Amino acid sequence: MSHLTNDKAVKEPRITLVGAGPGDADLITVKAIKALKTANVVLYDALVNEELLEYAPQTATKVYVGKRSGDHTFSQDAVNKLLVDYAVNYGHVVRLKGGDPFVFGRGFEELDYAASCNIPATVIPGISSAIGVPELQNIPVTHRGLSESFWVVTGTTSSGKISNDLYEAARSKATVVVLMGIHKLAEIAEIFKKEGKNNLPVAVIQSGTTANEKVAIGIVDTIVDAVAENNITSPALIVLGEVVSLHPKFQLSKEFYDIIAEG
Amino acid sequence: MSHLTNDKAVKEPRITLVGAGPGDADLITVKAIKALKTANVVLYDALVNEELLEYAPQTATKVYVGKRSGDHTFSQDAVNKLLVDYAVNYGHVVRLKGGDPFVFGRGFEELDYAASCNIPATVIPGISSAIGVPELQNIPVTHRGLSESFWVVTGTTSSGKISNDLYEAARSKATVVVLMGIHKLAEIAEIFKKEGKNNLPVAVIQSGTTANEKVAIGIVDTIVDAVAENNITSPALIVLGEVVSLHPKFQLSKEFYDIIAEG
Repeated sequence: MSHLTNDKAVKEPRITLVGAGPGDADLITVKAIKALKTANVVLYDALVNEELLEYAPQTATKVYVGKRSGDHTFSQDAVNKLLVDYAVNYGHVVRLKGGDPFVFGRGFEELDYAASCNIPATVIPGISSAIGVPELQNIPVTHRGLSESFWVVTGTTSSGKISNDLYEAARSKATVVVLMGIHKLAEIAEIFKKEGKNNLPVAVIQSGTTANEKVAIGIVDTIVDAVAENNITSPALIVLGEVVSLHPKFQLSKEFYDIIAEG
Repeated sequence: MSHLTNDKAVKEPRITLVGAGPGDADLITVKAIKALKTANVVLYDALVNEELLEYAPQTATKVYVGKRSGDHTFSQDAVNKLLVDYAVNYGHVVRLKGGDPFVFGRGFEELDYAASCNIPATVIPGISSAIGVPELQNIPVTHRGLSESFWVVTGTTSSGKISNDLYEAARSKATVVVLMGIHKLAEIAEIFKKEGKNNLPVAVIQSGTTANEKVAIGIVDTIVDAVAENNITSPALIVLGEVVSLHPKFQLSKEFYDIIAEG
């Protein structure tokens, strides 16, 4: 009897989408850890810190479903189906996603698919890279006198093109944070130049909050070169706005840029 | 000797700004808990869940520096000075702030003041209400086909007026999240009406992620009434965008709004 009861408890299918945060394993929430501790299966992405898998039971199945750049090892449809199949067969599935699941994470699609299969599914927010990565470089997305708002845009839409929203963002006074845009940095800089924002401060941060973190600081006119000099590659985010002037590296080079601006 | 050494260790002044998240005590990070465990003093805000104070040592001094609505019990200058005074006299000061310290939290000003006094100061990101509160209501700030970006704006600038950025945000296709804007909801709705967005879905969420959570769902034309009917008051945030149509309550009333739109 006790064996049957236990078996049934294990197999109650449910899915928890969990935000793993930007990279540093200590930027996980208590709520996320509690979910991981009761996981029968963990499905995790490329940008998730693998140390976090240690919170799950040793007996839990861990499945990597990350997408390599330009080479989708698992389509979104395949991930949706895996989530539901594992839940039905093994019980509690934790879907561990980099950053926050609802910030360009396609998390809602996964919840929605689970609901369509009558599998209970919930979400646990994570520290979004959009805010946390600039923050740990001492760049606040808002700051009195410099920015009353921030606008987070994807550099890569489903069509592969830059979002139209970025053209509007370049006209605004908001701090603009571009995720998944590093491969289009030159194009993005051109959009801001067309708005006359050649001297707007820009930061590009690779692998923020991890041991591989790299940062390039400049202005719209210089950022492409600064990124090349610092060998910055994906994954990286871009911050465009006066708040970037608060970064220590920008303060150091401010005099230099002032001379350029006057020249 | 050992007493002196110990005394010196305790008094090494430093400040850690810590994001407490939106309300649910389990939405704190491991990194934040580690900081709290070594705190000699904790300075905390009105919107911080007081359960989090239990992570600090029993011997730590806990100081409430929250601002009551319209009655600033502590000015920002006073908080800055308290932070530094406590650090100099007691050692490690944790400044626990609701949400994320760099999202309209004036966190950078506190770091900056500490730096000007030569006190080492760092920041630990928290789950921002702007993303996490809608998320736990199943509203994703981005979703394929509905929103390629989100724009977070303050409803209350330092001058007390609505940010000019909100007028631009109302013209954009971004999901717009307004923090600290509940007292100006009617004015904000008017701004969106002027852009012809009378039928844009809107959610207002009070005390998100806590036991007191309340939500009103509607469209720009109906949201002021919906908020009154649900007795929603501060603290609350406003989400305006097609993504709000994904909320179960909106789905239920969609037919009703479709009739209005056709009428």
